Amino acid sequence: MAKETPYIFELEMKVRDYEVDSQGIVNNANYLHYLEHTRHEFCEAVGVSFRQMQSRGIDPVVSKIEISYLTPLRLADRMRSCLWLERKGARFIFHQDIYDMKGNMVVRALVNIVSLENGRLSRGDTLAESFASTLSPAT
Amino acid sequence: MAKETPYIFELEMKVRDYEVDSQGIVNNANYLHYLEHTRHEFCEAVGVSFRQMQSRGIDPVVSKIEISYLTPLRLADRMRSCLWLERKGARFIFHQDIYDMKGNMVVRALVNIVSLENGRLSRGDTLAESFASTLSPAT
Amino acid sequence: MAKETPYIFELEMKVRDYEVDSQGIVNNANYLHYLEHTRHEFCEAVGVSFRQMQSRGIDPVVSKIEISYLTPLRLADRMRSCLWLERKGARFIFHQDIYDMKGNMVVRALVNIVSLENGRLSRGDTLAESFASTLSPAT
Amino acid sequence: MAKETPYIFELEMKVRDYEVDSQGIVNNANYLHYLEHTRHEFCEAVGVSFRQMQSRGIDPVVSKIEISYLTPLRLADRMRSCLWLERKGARFIFHQDIYDMKGNMVVRALVNIVSLENGRLSRGDTLAESFASTLSPAT
Repeated sequence: MAKETPYIFELEMKVRDYEVDSQGIVNNANYLHYLEHTRHEFCEAVGVSFRQMQSRGIDPVVSKIEISYLTPLRLADRMRSCLWLERKGARFIFHQDIYDMKGNMVVRALVNIVSLENGRLSRGDTLAESFASTLSPAT
Repeated sequence: MAKETPYIFELEMKVRDYEVDSQGIVNNANYLHYLEHTRHEFCEAVGVSFRQMQSRGIDPVVSKIEISYLTPLRLADRMRSCLWLERKGARFIFHQDIYDMKGNMVVRALVNIVSLENGRLSRGDTLAESFASTLSPAT
Repeated sequence: MAKETPYIFELEMKVRDYEVDSQGIVNNANYLHYLEHTRHEFCEAVGVSFRQMQSRGIDPVVSKIEISYLTPLRLADRMRSCLWLERKGARFIFHQDIYDMKGNMVVRALVNIVSLENGRLSRGDTLAESFASTLSPAT
Repeated sequence: MAKETPYIFELEMKVRDYEVDSQGIVNNANYLHYLEHTRHEFCEAVGVSFRQMQSRGIDPVVSKIEISYLTPLRLADRMRSCLWLERKGARFIFHQDIYDMKGNMVVRALVNIVSLENGRLSRGDTLAESFASTLSPAT
């Protein structure tokens, strides 16, 4: 039986005209903007505040992104940006997929976040507490 | 007799592909990026350091921009971005023009900068000292 | 008696993190993106289709922008982007103001649009037909 | 003995202020812009013209990017953006690394390009001819 994709957050967005390039499709870098904006809206929704973290000396940074481009978005297209979250040791892996409104997968991405504490790579325990309720159980 | 345009700084740049939009021309917002980058290169060239200013509580901010779009730039076009600088009371006015390599004017802009000191609008005297050697004489 | 500002369209948006620069405020160029996106949403709302216009050889382009920066937007701020529209001869002037959620004016802008027909500056009559129902009466 | 990294193209660039975000470092999406710009400059340098390709119905598109973020770039930093190129079946893999001026690796990326011919995924033979002189021998 097929396993459901365990998305825990979803954001609808719309392509803005300046995000489309001379080929008539959204430029590849803009998808990282969509993904980032989705993560930030997710964090806000679950009550994780970057300002609070920073005031405690905790600084989450992107360490690696893998992104596959499957179906291009065009002028004025709408999209659904979905994510779920997993911890692997010191890394937090955001599984982020964007779909067009017909249900085609637009991009599929893995975004690795690590947590710096006072400028050094941390084990991520503080960040894990913040995300506790949303993390998928270790497998 | 025609008065020469008194440019005091010039920077050559090249259009990057992602700056071009679906109409095949550079998106209007990107010209503000070109203008800003030119001002920063100018400041660096004349030894005005934003970090030093900020450490003294001085914060130059853009208060107004007027920009006319005359000739569009396209994929891979080169440009010359030129400026001269004038003080009017508390305001510093950057006269910024961009030309294509045939000499056509691409955009003509007036960029007004004011100087905040410790968060309040200042008379601009400290910033004026920094720019002293480059300011056109009051007319 | 104060004349009401005759806005005919309004869009709510939210600052995305990548739009904020190292001074902690939205970079000045991004406001042109907000304004452009608002105009496009407006056109879509009133049924003016750029694709249809382009297929008829009509190409609206920005010829001039005047923008005053009054109150900076910061990380995660929400805004209301409002506009009304006026025709002056061949030019269409979008009066565009952005407010923060406390009602402070963030930027005030005049955006001039002219209409190219088959590559040449037109009198704008075709575009005026499209906007007929939304244009303020000539004053 | 260490194998030399077989870079075949290198471009020096400088961080522009608007590319830096509120954390004081270059936003992760901007590195894709740097990488793209480097590929385009490379293509131009070796005489591969996108316009010519498009006129022949060939459209190279990014299918996948893997990027690791190692050392952040900051305001006004300079960088060296290097690449070499490999073919794997229908895919062209750009190995792209960016270094700061001290020689630290800033990002390491693999960018997969596939070639659409008349809208369909091709075996890439036409694109391979264009890149013939620059492709690393199959291993």
